[in-house]
Amino acid sequence: MRTLRFIISYEGGNFEGYQLQPACRTVQGEIETALAGLCGRPLRPTAAGRTDAGVHAAAQVLTLEVPDEVTLPCKAFLHGLNGRLPDDLAVLAVEECQPGFDARRDALGKHYRYRLLHRPTRHPLYQHTHWLLFGPLDASAMGVACAAFVGEHDFASLRAADCQSRTTVRKLSRVELAVRQLEEGGRELTLDVEGTAFLKHMVRTLAGTLVAVGRGRFKPEDIPRILAARDRARAGVTAPAHGLTLMSVRYPQPVGFAWRVE
Amino acid sequence: MRTLRFIISYEGGNFEGYQLQPACRTVQGEIETALAGLCGRPLRPTAAGRTDAGVHAAAQVLTLEVPDEVTLPCKAFLHGLNGRLPDDLAVLAVEECQPGFDARRDALGKHYRYRLLHRPTRHPLYQHTHWLLFGPLDASAMGVACAAFVGEHDFASLRAADCQSRTTVRKLSRVELAVRQLEEGGRELTLDVEGTAFLKHMVRTLAGTLVAVGRGRFKPEDIPRILAARDRARAGVTAPAHGLTLMSVRYPQPVGFAWRVE
Repeated sequence: MRTLRFIISYEGGNFEGYQLQPACRTVQGEIETALAGLCGRPLRPTAAGRTDAGVHAAAQVLTLEVPDEVTLPCKAFLHGLNGRLPDDLAVLAVEECQPGFDARRDALGKHYRYRLLHRPTRHPLYQHTHWLLFGPLDASAMGVACAAFVGEHDFASLRAADCQSRTTVRKLSRVELAVRQLEEGGRELTLDVEGTAFLKHMVRTLAGTLVAVGRGRFKPEDIPRILAARDRARAGVTAPAHGLTLMSVRYPQPVGFAWRVE
Repeated sequence: MRTLRFIISYEGGNFEGYQLQPACRTVQGEIETALAGLCGRPLRPTAAGRTDAGVHAAAQVLTLEVPDEVTLPCKAFLHGLNGRLPDDLAVLAVEECQPGFDARRDALGKHYRYRLLHRPTRHPLYQHTHWLLFGPLDASAMGVACAAFVGEHDFASLRAADCQSRTTVRKLSRVELAVRQLEEGGRELTLDVEGTAFLKHMVRTLAGTLVAVGRGRFKPEDIPRILAARDRARAGVTAPAHGLTLMSVRYPQPVGFAWRVE
């Protein structure tokens, strides 16, 4: 038995999320179909985290227990899977890792990025990756509000109504907003969120709550009260899925990108 | 009669280029349909430059002569057109300009960007905007070769076989290659080309010729001979359209982005 680690990337727009669901196009479903075609038997990978429908991944991590009868080397997995996967999903790297390594259980943290576009009109080149916001938006207030989310908090106010987690305390090590003026007019706002683990819709609700600050509905100093209320209704809207990307997953040892270009 | 200037952006992937063609989906066709719907009469804009099928535009410039009977203000053009245009095409700004101003004739220059991805596997998040290159690629040699294209040259070797221009001498003020290592492994190469005017497929053939340098088929010092030959067969391949974006058009006075977000 070998344990392989895969780094995969996908455009989320045409997937009903990562997790396998009957009669839906999912990332896991496409991967398992490709693995079965390549290896001639059903195999089930484990993902570092499940992403929602519409959410993208720059570097999602999977592990796979490969039985001894499957003798394909890593490079054959890499190119064999990419030949079978659709254009909006690819394996970026495959490497052998220590036996028993588990992409989900061994993850120390994840980095998500939420992208916003603040402009008076829509913009075709940003439509698949950015939440478009019209009208007044106080980005400075949003930047100040970020700090209130950093650290260990009960995030019950920021989770989806149907979130199944038993505990709602999570720790965020980074909540940062960067603002970039666009030549074409308007601004791109990039929200980087890093933490050990996340509740369902937590990053998207955090983004929606920051936008409510930008709109003047909340002040930055309201955030601690919103968190303390442990009430989803007190926070902002759930930001649309297409603005969110899982950027990377952190492990005790860095995850290598095998077959690097030199 | 008023003269209006429009800045538009489009994802080129689902257009058969800018220019109107019967029974094809073109940028000009969509714009003229939207203008007719908004103004109740046929109106024909002039574009700074025609882009090929598949080529994107971050900021293409159009001018439109508006008869006095059409009294809509700029803002009504902006939002009225965006409401009628498809998702992959939008008007970013509209402003009134001096009578007789012509987006094509008055342009002093254009800035094109060609994007390449050098990686051992395909990457879903770059698939619509980058030419994917596998295998050895000497980016330093490509960077050196760029300099040979700068200045006034006869670019007959770099134009499409069916290019209609009578003259083939053009002047490039900037040909620069930037290389960025990607966290996911591999590199992004960004080629910026600025000039007064361009022959058909000139930027794409320049990109293809640089890639031939990167592959070792040509040396940087071969470029002057390739240009001097005035023979399309001596240059590299025409790089795929989806890697090319018209970034901006330069005029004697800067073109404003009206209705800026503050």
